[in-house]
Amino acid sequence: MGETHHARRRRLAALIAERDAGALLVTRLVNVRYLTGLDSSRAALLVPADGAAVLATDGRYAGMAAQVCPELPVIVDRQVAAALVTRAAADGHARLGFEAHDVTVEQHAELRGQAEIELAALGHLVEDLRRVKDEEEIALLREACAITDRAFEAALPGIRAGVTEREVAVALERAMVDLGAEGPAFASIVASGPNGAIAHHHPGGRELRRGDLVTMDFGARYGGYHADMTRTVAIGEPAGWQRDVYDLVHRAQRAGLDAAVPGAETKDVDAAARDVIKAAGHGDAFTHGLGHGVGLEIHEAPLLGYDKTGKLMDRVPITAEPGVYLTGRGGVRIEDTFVVRADGPELLTTTTKDLLVL
Amino acid sequence: MGETHHARRRRLAALIAERDAGALLVTRLVNVRYLTGLDSSRAALLVPADGAAVLATDGRYAGMAAQVCPELPVIVDRQVAAALVTRAAADGHARLGFEAHDVTVEQHAELRGQAEIELAALGHLVEDLRRVKDEEEIALLREACAITDRAFEAALPGIRAGVTEREVAVALERAMVDLGAEGPAFASIVASGPNGAIAHHHPGGRELRRGDLVTMDFGARYGGYHADMTRTVAIGEPAGWQRDVYDLVHRAQRAGLDAAVPGAETKDVDAAARDVIKAAGHGDAFTHGLGHGVGLEIHEAPLLGYDKTGKLMDRVPITAEPGVYLTGRGGVRIEDTFVVRADGPELLTTTTKDLLVL
Repeated sequence: MGETHHARRRRLAALIAERDAGALLVTRLVNVRYLTGLDSSRAALLVPADGAAVLATDGRYAGMAAQVCPELPVIVDRQVAAALVTRAAADGHARLGFEAHDVTVEQHAELRGQAEIELAALGHLVEDLRRVKDEEEIALLREACAITDRAFEAALPGIRAGVTEREVAVALERAMVDLGAEGPAFASIVASGPNGAIAHHHPGGRELRRGDLVTMDFGARYGGYHADMTRTVAIGEPAGWQRDVYDLVHRAQRAGLDAAVPGAETKDVDAAARDVIKAAGHGDAFTHGLGHGVGLEIHEAPLLGYDKTGKLMDRVPITAEPGVYLTGRGGVRIEDTFVVRADGPELLTTTTKDLLVL
Repeated sequence: MGETHHARRRRLAALIAERDAGALLVTRLVNVRYLTGLDSSRAALLVPADGAAVLATDGRYAGMAAQVCPELPVIVDRQVAAALVTRAAADGHARLGFEAHDVTVEQHAELRGQAEIELAALGHLVEDLRRVKDEEEIALLREACAITDRAFEAALPGIRAGVTEREVAVALERAMVDLGAEGPAFASIVASGPNGAIAHHHPGGRELRRGDLVTMDFGARYGGYHADMTRTVAIGEPAGWQRDVYDLVHRAQRAGLDAAVPGAETKDVDAAARDVIKAAGHGDAFTHGLGHGVGLEIHEAPLLGYDKTGKLMDRVPITAEPGVYLTGRGGVRIEDTFVVRADGPELLTTTTKDLLVL
């Protein structure tokens, strides 16, 4: 991946040059990973406008850095950001960009005292780069999603009356690891019966029973990339209202997928799905945005919501996850991870969306 | 837990009153959880000096908040911090404390534009409170550590030549969940043979073989609390140097534990262990601090290092984890979670520290 990371740093360096900064101090760890391949809990990267980057990390990660990004000079220092501010000043830069969405007010005060150099907020440059994925990233996401699909299939026989939400969550997570995941991409949600009305329910000791809808929101992490899928199933023959809500959410999701074309405004994509649910009188029961980008983070740019701005582009992987939550009764959510493509959405999660009656 | 959380908020309110702020805006999610019991990915808490707190969270967590902290008024708004700044101004506060170690430079600029109110950095008030645990918290940590001990015992028969580091990590993590953990407290480290020289090695496909030392650093999360234990074992009869390094690290850890009494300076506790390793000529091979606080976070105050200041106190749970890392050869680390007590350290992880030869 050394070349890939080098190419990413070159693209970033071009953006830095455009902003008239001598260099950018990258402190968000996930951005450092994107630009170097190094997955560390303490690291920062100095990217000058000429692209000749310098990494800082602490002693615990020095050996790993030498393996993962041998092409980069490494400063071993626990004060990673301060060390790179000092370095930028020593290299003669007058103006150093920083990630104002990551650096805290406290850190900023410390860094300002570090050296004679102007610190300038340059926006979310690395996140902007990360929105559109290269095909290497999409291949990792595709595998993460394939593992997620297979794990659902593997866990399916165990999803039945009498088992607890927590047991289902564990079964899904174990299946993902058995199938090659590094781990779950996030804490799995399994919400049964009335718990289905809580969009982010923590799976607990409630046993599934006949007449429940069960919503499972889970995904695998693979190569650092995050899959995200939700399916809602019925335990025993569903009641009429359950089938109606399911069909409604299913249609809403289809409308969202169809609207997600390159060039579309994110709020229009959200509206395409939301309007279907509103028209059925359940607008208030869809309490969150339609979806979000996925990649090295489970939630990343772009966000899809009625109040979000921005356009979709080719090769942007996102989710579409409309839901209807009816307090005291239950809920339905259906979610896929897919890639926005000029020739229509490429679904990465491919598990059936017919209502499964278990 | 409602009463416990109320008591914590009262203690915080007293600190806020001392600082002459009308209220504190708590935005660090783990601090919100400590003060309310709510485990949300988007929430903030306004704690006025009179203690009558107001919670803000988004629609996904409104139902959970009503269950977990029904005593608190809740503002449902996705802009949780902004909503509470507005509320603080409306309540007539002229000066609002904020967590400068959590609020980013970007958020700070947004919040300043939100209302006519002075924002004042008040330090790490909630983290300061969190250092000393109440017995309810220690009971949760004790259970997290007991699960960790039992998981090690359960996984022991599978730690043998021919299995991969990753298989050992998965076995440990599964055993913890089977024994009641919510999940692993952090990504488990399993480092075998020469990988043992990398303090934070990611477990990979290397197979354990005779002659290896294998370092396993793992722990269970239970009730939100994090256990942390490391053991190094030998696969087959260890070489002389392996036994020597093991004994050295074992003695260093014992010295660290003995020094961890209420009132001790954290750097003196670090030095007690470090001096043992230095005296044996391996000072440069112990590349990190001796330990750290554990609780709702896996790493929290106090930190134990040669350059750290602060005193230990009764009822502070911390780790002691000296290590010696010899590039190309391997390493040893031994770690326990324990509680600083007036009558000597209370070990929460109790797995044997005799060198196990498997």
